[in-house]
Amino acid sequence: MSLIDADLLIDNASQVVTCAGPAPKRGAALADAGVIPGGAVAVAGGVIVAVGPAADVRARVRARATLDAGGRALIPGLIDCHTHLVYGGDRAGEFELRIRGASYVEIMAAGGGILNTMRQTREASAEALASQAEPRLREMAANGATTVEIKTGYGLDLESELRMLAAIARLAALGVCEIVPTVLAAHTVPPEFKDDPDGYVDEVVSHILPAAAAWHAASRFAARGIRLGVDVFCENHAFTVAQSQRVLEAGARLGLAPKIHVDQFTSLGGVEMALAAGALSCDHLEATTPADAARLGASGAAAVVLPACAFNFGNTQFADARGLVNAGAALALATDHNPGSAPCLSLPLVMAIACRYQRLLPAEALNAVTINAAHALGLADRIGSIEVGKRADLLLLKAADYRSLAYVLGDDPLITLVTLITLITLP
Amino acid sequence: MSLIDADLLIDNASQVVTCAGPAPKRGAALADAGVIPGGAVAVAGGVIVAVGPAADVRARVRARATLDAGGRALIPGLIDCHTHLVYGGDRAGEFELRIRGASYVEIMAAGGGILNTMRQTREASAEALASQAEPRLREMAANGATTVEIKTGYGLDLESELRMLAAIARLAALGVCEIVPTVLAAHTVPPEFKDDPDGYVDEVVSHILPAAAAWHAASRFAARGIRLGVDVFCENHAFTVAQSQRVLEAGARLGLAPKIHVDQFTSLGGVEMALAAGALSCDHLEATTPADAARLGASGAAAVVLPACAFNFGNTQFADARGLVNAGAALALATDHNPGSAPCLSLPLVMAIACRYQRLLPAEALNAVTINAAHALGLADRIGSIEVGKRADLLLLKAADYRSLAYVLGDDPLITLVTLITLITLP
Repeated sequence: MSLIDADLLIDNASQVVTCAGPAPKRGAALADAGVIPGGAVAVAGGVIVAVGPAADVRARVRARATLDAGGRALIPGLIDCHTHLVYGGDRAGEFELRIRGASYVEIMAAGGGILNTMRQTREASAEALASQAEPRLREMAANGATTVEIKTGYGLDLESELRMLAAIARLAALGVCEIVPTVLAAHTVPPEFKDDPDGYVDEVVSHILPAAAAWHAASRFAARGIRLGVDVFCENHAFTVAQSQRVLEAGARLGLAPKIHVDQFTSLGGVEMALAAGALSCDHLEATTPADAARLGASGAAAVVLPACAFNFGNTQFADARGLVNAGAALALATDHNPGSAPCLSLPLVMAIACRYQRLLPAEALNAVTINAAHALGLADRIGSIEVGKRADLLLLKAADYRSLAYVLGDDPLITLVTLITLITLP
Repeated sequence: MSLIDADLLIDNASQVVTCAGPAPKRGAALADAGVIPGGAVAVAGGVIVAVGPAADVRARVRARATLDAGGRALIPGLIDCHTHLVYGGDRAGEFELRIRGASYVEIMAAGGGILNTMRQTREASAEALASQAEPRLREMAANGATTVEIKTGYGLDLESELRMLAAIARLAALGVCEIVPTVLAAHTVPPEFKDDPDGYVDEVVSHILPAAAAWHAASRFAARGIRLGVDVFCENHAFTVAQSQRVLEAGARLGLAPKIHVDQFTSLGGVEMALAAGALSCDHLEATTPADAARLGASGAAAVVLPACAFNFGNTQFADARGLVNAGAALALATDHNPGSAPCLSLPLVMAIACRYQRLLPAEALNAVTINAAHALGLADRIGSIEVGKRADLLLLKAADYRSLAYVLGDDPLITLVTLITLITLP
């Protein structure tokens, strides 16, 4: 038997937690993290070429270098499939005002609310937006994220939405994480269209989405085979189901990957519409009905739950993640990072909240931020698990037991981060 | 006017958040963090020698070195006044079992529960206990803690409790944080005294506490003017009020600083007893009655609330911190770090939980982990605020606004940590 040539053998892990298996994981499969006790992984050209029990991998591989994992757990890089990481300003003042019980008008007057973020975003250059977001992205990466989806949605006009996309491309060029862009021009109705929301939907459908698609076609993202997402906030005081449908269908016709903010406060029927429009994921789902949970379970779409948002408001009610799992949905978890409702930079903290307030098992939470989050981004063929042929986005934890990632609160979880970026520079 | 000589001038902060004022802070004073916009601080010999508006401090000080704070916020070092940081093993397996709904017997069988931690602690050397705790302590420090109280209580016999104290002394010798030791021999009734809890209280009172006091008198802690605390868990299935009283009074006679775990699940009357016994702090307080809250408000004791514990169990009910503040209590917050109910290493995360689930203002949460936590340890004369004469335990935040410490979730909050340890090594 000829040996497999590898750049790197990662040996002496306490466990290799593969998250492998048919993607997405549903039901009982979600509770299986694919733990290989004492496993090893070999990598060549930034791609996993062998994984299994250490003795077996050692026997099959000829590696140019070996990394001693020191009896720690090796897991897939984490994937944050829903963030609003790019924006102008922050909302720490609004945070205090909300605790004081301030009214919406007082919060707006003090610089809070989405329209204040819109104003500060419109005033910022792409360079300024990227440089404000960069430390946040680096912190997410320090907390284990190797792929981060980032939405527009604070520009709310053609020029500003494209500037947000340009900022997202700048962040991607840093090489900190793989970045997946999404155009969320239909985040809220901008002041210019206050009395004509359908007019704004026209603008989104006729001008913003086509321009975003053209931008994408010429971007590094297209060259890397990463689709541009199209997202819409379907909710009272945002966009109706019919308006949301127009946005998603227009995006889909342009080759964009549809997804939706749905059922955050109100069940309007957006899930059924989005699934019919071919949504890759339905996100939020705090108010989803059992019938819509069953629809999600019967669909190929990911059900993306965002517990940092309920936590941030001190809510005691969270999305029924357990019910979604039982209904067969492809559950994923994400930070929802944004300055208002979820100023969260840590997927391990999201896992910790989900395990405690949504009764997810550590294995379910891990699969939900790896293989199922990859599925939510349409990237499960290349990332999200430790399997031969997938990209070597690997995390070496401080701990010997992967469950520590959700168990320990407020820890910096990683000691080593092995990604494509480092591996392709190996000699 | 002659100039003040300083080793270091910290200039160009966005704000110096002093937490200054009569200690402890109560009621409306707790909501005042003492923000000096554009302030500066000067330090000599590890002690603060000037603080105020930057122009004023610059005019009064001749400094050998200047640190440019770069428009970031400068705050006091954080103080964690209640932890169980030293123990053998961990309980990640128990964490998963609890989510699965396992019974107490199943959890014990799988290596969970306090008595399993006791067994693993008894089996470990002081060196092993300290080396297991060291990365946890360093992570707490990375999250802003400059002083950490650490309790015994997993040894539960004379030799093992002293070994835990020896481990705590080893951690103190690292110079990572100021460490405050507490003997919590009365944490639970050990198996040897299962049918004779009063016999164990006899053992604690007659042998363990005197030995601990003798150990302390000869320790580095006594030399630094740091008292040894004596703590007891007053609760059904732990120690009665009468037993707890015996422990605290015996400790007080030996010169130890009394404190108590009280009202975590049941209000038994422990608060009134502990105050009469001269407690420095009453800790937990989830089940405290309004009458006992009023007693705390009228007392000099700190009311220490531990929200990471309720969070860890996915509880929706937290200690009524707001009610304690309204009753005039000297509210403090701590992590309660322990492997079972609060595996938490981050005071900023504790602040974040308290602001969201206990409706504390960011200023209240900050005072509760600085000046009031110092008061809870009897150290408010030397740490806990940025005031002339106090030790230069200072944190420079990433953010320009101190409220970000509670607002942003899952961030590593610090860029610089200036403590006595670094300052006394300045040329």
